Amino acid sequence: MSSKQATGKKGIIDCDVHVYPKSREELNKYLPQPWRDWYRPLTRAYGNIQGNRADAKPPGGGGAGTDPDFLREQLIDEYGIDYAILLPRAMLNNLPNPDMASAVAAAYNDWLADTWLDKYNHDGVFKGSLYIATQDPAGAAREIERWAGHPHFVQVMTDSGATAPFGQRQYYPIYEACEKYGFPLAIHPGTDGMGINHQPTPGHPTRYIEFHTCLSLAFQAHLVSFLTEGVFVKFPKFKIALVEGGVSWLAPLMWRLDAEYKGLRYEVPWLEKRPSEFLRDHVRMTSQPIERPDDDKYLFAMLEAMDAEHILMFASDYPHWDFDSPRRAFPKLPDELHRRIFFENAKEFYNL
Amino acid sequence: MSSKQATGKKGIIDCDVHVYPKSREELNKYLPQPWRDWYRPLTRAYGNIQGNRADAKPPGGGGAGTDPDFLREQLIDEYGIDYAILLPRAMLNNLPNPDMASAVAAAYNDWLADTWLDKYNHDGVFKGSLYIATQDPAGAAREIERWAGHPHFVQVMTDSGATAPFGQRQYYPIYEACEKYGFPLAIHPGTDGMGINHQPTPGHPTRYIEFHTCLSLAFQAHLVSFLTEGVFVKFPKFKIALVEGGVSWLAPLMWRLDAEYKGLRYEVPWLEKRPSEFLRDHVRMTSQPIERPDDDKYLFAMLEAMDAEHILMFASDYPHWDFDSPRRAFPKLPDELHRRIFFENAKEFYNL
Repeated sequence: MSSKQATGKKGIIDCDVHVYPKSREELNKYLPQPWRDWYRPLTRAYGNIQGNRADAKPPGGGGAGTDPDFLREQLIDEYGIDYAILLPRAMLNNLPNPDMASAVAAAYNDWLADTWLDKYNHDGVFKGSLYIATQDPAGAAREIERWAGHPHFVQVMTDSGATAPFGQRQYYPIYEACEKYGFPLAIHPGTDGMGINHQPTPGHPTRYIEFHTCLSLAFQAHLVSFLTEGVFVKFPKFKIALVEGGVSWLAPLMWRLDAEYKGLRYEVPWLEKRPSEFLRDHVRMTSQPIERPDDDKYLFAMLEAMDAEHILMFASDYPHWDFDSPRRAFPKLPDELHRRIFFENAKEFYNL
Repeated sequence: MSSKQATGKKGIIDCDVHVYPKSREELNKYLPQPWRDWYRPLTRAYGNIQGNRADAKPPGGGGAGTDPDFLREQLIDEYGIDYAILLPRAMLNNLPNPDMASAVAAAYNDWLADTWLDKYNHDGVFKGSLYIATQDPAGAAREIERWAGHPHFVQVMTDSGATAPFGQRQYYPIYEACEKYGFPLAIHPGTDGMGINHQPTPGHPTRYIEFHTCLSLAFQAHLVSFLTEGVFVKFPKFKIALVEGGVSWLAPLMWRLDAEYKGLRYEVPWLEKRPSEFLRDHVRMTSQPIERPDDDKYLFAMLEAMDAEHILMFASDYPHWDFDSPRRAFPKLPDELHRRIFFENAKEFYNL
């Protein structure tokens, strides 16, 4: 199917699309001093020579994910996508200086609004993620407040790297602001084991394949923290999206945690129901990279066990190397399940 | 069924039974100076008031798992167990001083041989685990050599806590010795986030329920390391047992890792087959704490997907609070699968 034939909408919301400033100069326009001079992004210790899809470089120049027209052609029109949830990659949770981290977050938000959400968005297909720095909870709350009511920001986002599991109380000003202004919080891989964050495995992995496989483990630890700390009891309208953290670990982890709860609930008396019972009201996962066992029957078993009908939202991770095509990512799904995963769950979650 | 009625063997090998010195003095008999004076076990930051089964204290005094006669009565005879694989809890991987760690490991081994394996073992029901300290690989290799040929030591063991993932090359003297002397290596939870080991999650959990749920994540990271580093290529007869690290995460993790391998195999050219294909020849898991979803059909799907018929070995974790009874741990299994999990897999793995 060429992009010219595929201009109609197909009932797809893509929940993980990455966009980038064309250059540091483009970001600098939104970054005040002294941060414009002082800010140096940290280099990731685990490199991947593949990075982005080779064909995602816009013909007019610039890197993948920097050209709205080309992204429309290669992703939105090609697959008939109704909404693309845009996630910049600011990678801030690794910075020691919370003022710098919050300033860079604000610059990314101003840049995203100005470059993608307010311009190039006549049809409203682009929905944005508000970056925050978790090492500055009060600053993050102010940043969330600053964007309340914007027509195209649909969630707050942060990196999975952290100095503490995300259920802990130092983060609550962020969750309070998310709840107050109606933003879910998306957590996306990034900054694990970098800068101020310890590597969340027993010591440092050796290569990217090991590092990247283990990224999902940090998501599991954060989710256990959110659940056991009672974040969803304290903030009953607060919701999270686990983006690009893997999918089929959810049911096994919940079996384990529910069993622990049975024996150890005296530690968490605020939980009046089993941890897994909070998921449907509070937690969503995005699909990419969806696991594909040799026999899809096991994937179907896990989708059923994890309540994918209510929990899972499609994502492509465009323009990254491990992009999941909406046409090929999943085995043939029952129509209703397909519609829930590709469209309805995200439509409800983001109020689209 | 009372213990008096159940003296016959039932085709059960219990792969995780904990035994302890009656007192520090009992261990000290095997611990030379200066370590006898210098060694102080570190206290775990995450306490659990339950600890051991309340009924596991021997009537004659002493703590749970310290009295061979009482352990025979409460576990071996009660359930008709053919062999019990004994795992002491020395907890050494957290100690900064490798000489101290190896000295304490040797003391535990001398104590275990003397107290359980050589005495109280007329029928050979007790099989032992040789403790080593992974921060002293050459010392660990010497300790393994010291016990080569002992009739009742069937494996080497270490704690899951570590300063580096276990696939890394600094550990290879240990694996070389294991392979040479025919010992598998068992990894058991312990020392994670203690002493010299960083906590293998994004920051420190708050409570035992969170810490304990996340113990399985360190096992996943170690397994990914063993597989991607090519340990089983370099040591083709070396095998590992993942003890008490959870079960049903295995298939989802392998789906993820195999997919990563598809895209990233240029990083690991020594792997001439998919990572998951090494499991049957090299990796076993023990069952406790086995996950029990509300609907056992999902557990059966995961047992099938993980090749439990060849990979999984029953364990009770006696005398701990979350003991899995051989009678109730699993749903009713098909006869052949039951026999593989409860007996044959361990019989083959440990050459019993």
